[in-house]
Amino acid sequence: MDLLSINEPSFLKTMSNKQLEELSQEIRQFLINTLSETGGHIGPNLGVVELTVALHKCFDSPKDKILWDVGHQSYVHKILTGRAGQFDSLRQYQGLCGFPKRNESEHDCWETGHSSTSLSAAMGMAIARDVKKEDSFVVPVIGDGALTGGMALEALNHIGAEQKDMIVVLNDNEMSIAPNVGALHNVLGRLRTDGKYNWVKDELEYILKRIPAVGGRLASTAERVKDSLKYLFVSGMFFEELGFTYLGPIDGHDFDDLFENLQYAKKTKGPVLLHVITKKGKGFQPAESDKKGTWHGTGPYKIDTGDLIKPVDAPPSWSGLVSGTVQKIAREDERIVAITPAMPVGSKLLGFAEEFPDRMFDVGIAEQHATTVAAGLATQNMKPFLAIYSTFLQRAYDQVVHDICRQNLNVFIGIDRAGLVGADGETHQGVFDIAFLRHLPNMVIMMPKDENEGQHLVNTALLYNDGPIALRYPRGNGYGVTMDSELKQIPIGSWEVLKQGTDAAILTFGTTIPMAMEAAEGLEKKGVSVKVVNARFIKPLDEEMMHNIFKADIPVLTIEEAVLQGGFGSAVLEFAQEKGYQHSRIDRMGIPDKFIEHGSVTELLKEIGMTKENVMDRILTITPKKQKRA
Amino acid sequence: MDLLSINEPSFLKTMSNKQLEELSQEIRQFLINTLSETGGHIGPNLGVVELTVALHKCFDSPKDKILWDVGHQSYVHKILTGRAGQFDSLRQYQGLCGFPKRNESEHDCWETGHSSTSLSAAMGMAIARDVKKEDSFVVPVIGDGALTGGMALEALNHIGAEQKDMIVVLNDNEMSIAPNVGALHNVLGRLRTDGKYNWVKDELEYILKRIPAVGGRLASTAERVKDSLKYLFVSGMFFEELGFTYLGPIDGHDFDDLFENLQYAKKTKGPVLLHVITKKGKGFQPAESDKKGTWHGTGPYKIDTGDLIKPVDAPPSWSGLVSGTVQKIAREDERIVAITPAMPVGSKLLGFAEEFPDRMFDVGIAEQHATTVAAGLATQNMKPFLAIYSTFLQRAYDQVVHDICRQNLNVFIGIDRAGLVGADGETHQGVFDIAFLRHLPNMVIMMPKDENEGQHLVNTALLYNDGPIALRYPRGNGYGVTMDSELKQIPIGSWEVLKQGTDAAILTFGTTIPMAMEAAEGLEKKGVSVKVVNARFIKPLDEEMMHNIFKADIPVLTIEEAVLQGGFGSAVLEFAQEKGYQHSRIDRMGIPDKFIEHGSVTELLKEIGMTKENVMDRILTITPKKQKRA
Repeated sequence: MDLLSINEPSFLKTMSNKQLEELSQEIRQFLINTLSETGGHIGPNLGVVELTVALHKCFDSPKDKILWDVGHQSYVHKILTGRAGQFDSLRQYQGLCGFPKRNESEHDCWETGHSSTSLSAAMGMAIARDVKKEDSFVVPVIGDGALTGGMALEALNHIGAEQKDMIVVLNDNEMSIAPNVGALHNVLGRLRTDGKYNWVKDELEYILKRIPAVGGRLASTAERVKDSLKYLFVSGMFFEELGFTYLGPIDGHDFDDLFENLQYAKKTKGPVLLHVITKKGKGFQPAESDKKGTWHGTGPYKIDTGDLIKPVDAPPSWSGLVSGTVQKIAREDERIVAITPAMPVGSKLLGFAEEFPDRMFDVGIAEQHATTVAAGLATQNMKPFLAIYSTFLQRAYDQVVHDICRQNLNVFIGIDRAGLVGADGETHQGVFDIAFLRHLPNMVIMMPKDENEGQHLVNTALLYNDGPIALRYPRGNGYGVTMDSELKQIPIGSWEVLKQGTDAAILTFGTTIPMAMEAAEGLEKKGVSVKVVNARFIKPLDEEMMHNIFKADIPVLTIEEAVLQGGFGSAVLEFAQEKGYQHSRIDRMGIPDKFIEHGSVTELLKEIGMTKENVMDRILTITPKKQKRA
Repeated sequence: MDLLSINEPSFLKTMSNKQLEELSQEIRQFLINTLSETGGHIGPNLGVVELTVALHKCFDSPKDKILWDVGHQSYVHKILTGRAGQFDSLRQYQGLCGFPKRNESEHDCWETGHSSTSLSAAMGMAIARDVKKEDSFVVPVIGDGALTGGMALEALNHIGAEQKDMIVVLNDNEMSIAPNVGALHNVLGRLRTDGKYNWVKDELEYILKRIPAVGGRLASTAERVKDSLKYLFVSGMFFEELGFTYLGPIDGHDFDDLFENLQYAKKTKGPVLLHVITKKGKGFQPAESDKKGTWHGTGPYKIDTGDLIKPVDAPPSWSGLVSGTVQKIAREDERIVAITPAMPVGSKLLGFAEEFPDRMFDVGIAEQHATTVAAGLATQNMKPFLAIYSTFLQRAYDQVVHDICRQNLNVFIGIDRAGLVGADGETHQGVFDIAFLRHLPNMVIMMPKDENEGQHLVNTALLYNDGPIALRYPRGNGYGVTMDSELKQIPIGSWEVLKQGTDAAILTFGTTIPMAMEAAEGLEKKGVSVKVVNARFIKPLDEEMMHNIFKADIPVLTIEEAVLQGGFGSAVLEFAQEKGYQHSRIDRMGIPDKFIEHGSVTELLKEIGMTKENVMDRILTITPKKQKRA
């Protein structure tokens, strides 16, 4: 059928399994074709084609609520709810979002991006339904990786206890983003390999009937064995123990199996856990055979060969630079231990893990635990490197406050994907970290101007022994600058003048430095002499340099690819106020008080007024005399 | 023995069980006596007397690491490590901390206050030990309530998978702070009532040997039954499933039972879970028979009667005022549902729960889940009231960002215990919330000047339908002001002038208003006329009033009982900068960039320079002409 003609999913109701299978193949081909142009989360979506079709056939969305945990596996759902025609704009500026989005469709009842939220949200929806005495199904779909996140476990515990009607679909593809870790994963592994053991139950009852009664004690044992049947053979025992009715394992690519169990689940009172086994990347050989997580999300690729179309000769990635430098220093310093919450690939820690298998820990999707493991290590005079994306560090805010900063422990936090991240959009922008870390006592926050300074700041962080120290670095690649062969230590709180100037000063750091330099050069041609400062320490500030700038009484523009409220610019305002500087005009450029959607970083910066031209205009505005001259 | 003579715990090594029992009674009596004067966490500590004695006898602290989760049960540990003599200063200014504190003793290897961190920290310590090839025991002690916190579950999952040597002591007192909730609690309950079933294993093997062999299939079933024995009869199955060796249940007041199992645990490779049953409040009748959690932590009390010594005729508590008003409005508005993460008593929600049992959910120690349940409710046009302490909201920062603010959902967050909390100290001060919420798009933050305005702001919050709205309120009691009988709605972003003045202006809110008013009255006598503004909306600011004040070009002092960096004062600086006001002198008073320890709120405010006199001095400093006159 023509996928572009689909408006909403009710057409599925009358289709036979054979027709659904054909539809699934069409959807699969559509995804392989369109994503080869746009890139996107190909692996997760190919894995849930039949599951998504089955859910939309069995349930009545939007009356029934289907929640996609993490949400990168919602493409099939988007196709079935009338959005196939928008896939050429997937994850592009003002185009189709790569995650569920409530303003795109009434079928997107819950927005995601971060993992492990669906069960809690589903609980809220189930409570609402029951208070309103309505009748609907609430169906969160959660992956085996997302299930290890603490909040999902909190939710399982509460849902099991409350016994609200809910059908939890556990989409078990044996991988989350990277291969899965954790004991819970082993439980799922045993369920998968053991298969179905309902026959065992019958057989065991037969055996038990043959056991001679040898007094009350033994009879009661036999009774216990019968009562405990459901605990036997691990089949769902873990979930049953928490109060769920366990159904599975179910072949997530077999409509007969899916429908049989979904129908049973719909008739079951209380919470049900439907354990569905799917194959990530199914139907596209390169993705299906991927063991490392490369095909979780990709850029464009060649369909016939499965080769990723990458920019030629890109400089090394920031993640690679930071993790590589840590690895190099770890050869000399045995105290260094690396920790990642499920991002060994993204954080480029596979090399570290290979060289130091006993000193690298992927703790799974568990940012809180990861952060406090680092704190625990630091109490023992170790030097933990916690590699974590800015947006995911949000989930460990309390652990940073209470465990790391309050105990003033020597943890090196590598804040990866700091700043705008582009295609992943508003759930993933790394724009809050300065505002949520800057007010914490003992915290040092840095951001390098290029890879060379980056390696020196990594070295600085690993030599620092006065408490927590964080290094922000952006998504993507460096500039390909020449690298010093000797690592240096950069004085804490020291800034660097990149360009001298006498009429105004720009204070900025990291990714916005090139824009500031270009603007300053453009202004030079207009006769305005602008000093540009690499404010590589966001906390503590370089007070000496600030005093010099404010004493010179020239206007100051701060620029940050981060939220303005409470950010770096506010720190400069606070300094000026505290020190009694009242004359210099200060302006702040950064991210305004709204969430920034997906698009290329360049497009997004333009949208929020952070371009070279904007910088020039704003410098001219706060430098009145020169403005007249210009 | 003389408890004051104890320096460190090695004296326990040579004591007999009988002597240990006597010692335990002495410790118990010491706690009952001293806490009757100082107040403190009496219930949790009376419950762990024998357990703590046993741990210090079996392990060699500080070489072995004993970690106290939450930490309010560490008093016995403090006595055994040489701090009995400091108990008269417990939880008082510059006195003994109510939680483990690394600068108090080398035996306090991990500081706590918030729950559920000990397992992650222990994992860090175990990794450090193994990397350093050292030989020591790591022994986290965690309560059954703390175990339901997401990060503890993340840690269990990781520890079970890594199989590091660790002895987790599960201190199961059937209550955490309030009676426990959750499915995991039911698992523990079954373990407790079922007792020990090792005998069942032997018996079952006897039975299985009698089963006739009827072909390969059945033989394999029999094999499976044997393999699955450890899963039978729920005895620790949940933990065994996660990779732990489960030992228990153990009578936590019986030294024979404790030592037998501790010795076995020491010999066991890999992680062990020691399930110890204790009785909260043991040995002090009022605490022992407490079902509501009243004796979890108390002020001073009368030993003979167990009556709490309370201030006579105290005005209603802030928690009671807010929860009571929500309850009143909930009679008219069926959309209102209340959620608490394990604080139904502290947040005074028992009345709500009684009147609306289907609309009040205690989700256990699970702040992340609680917050996203509220978000889920809001998607269904419900009006959730999330009652949460400021310090615990830190743990749900990402859920506030990603689930509530990003989706702009109508959640009413009641931020209880905002500002300095006093005796609980630095882990519990509610001083970060403004700085971590203010930079979030869509967020409204309020704080009332008194209970009457408090009830109107609760009403305002529940009528607000444009996104998240938070009301901060302090620990303790209101002022006893007259309450309006009709609830009003207060315009969002509107401030109130409490006192007119022409020479300077104070912008402040909540608890610091009385100090500001007194200072302004004092200054009036010195001829300085100070305007005092009730800045009850911290976000959004009252821009019209700010324009008026800045246009009048008078100096401005902001006061907040919250961190200065990125706080309310910074918002005022940002406003002045954005609107181009450069002349008025601005000063900001608040909490400096350090953690504030325990003590009375009055003492702490004095320490950080937030008194009426400080306010007067600072107004005089920024009001130069008047200063000369004064």
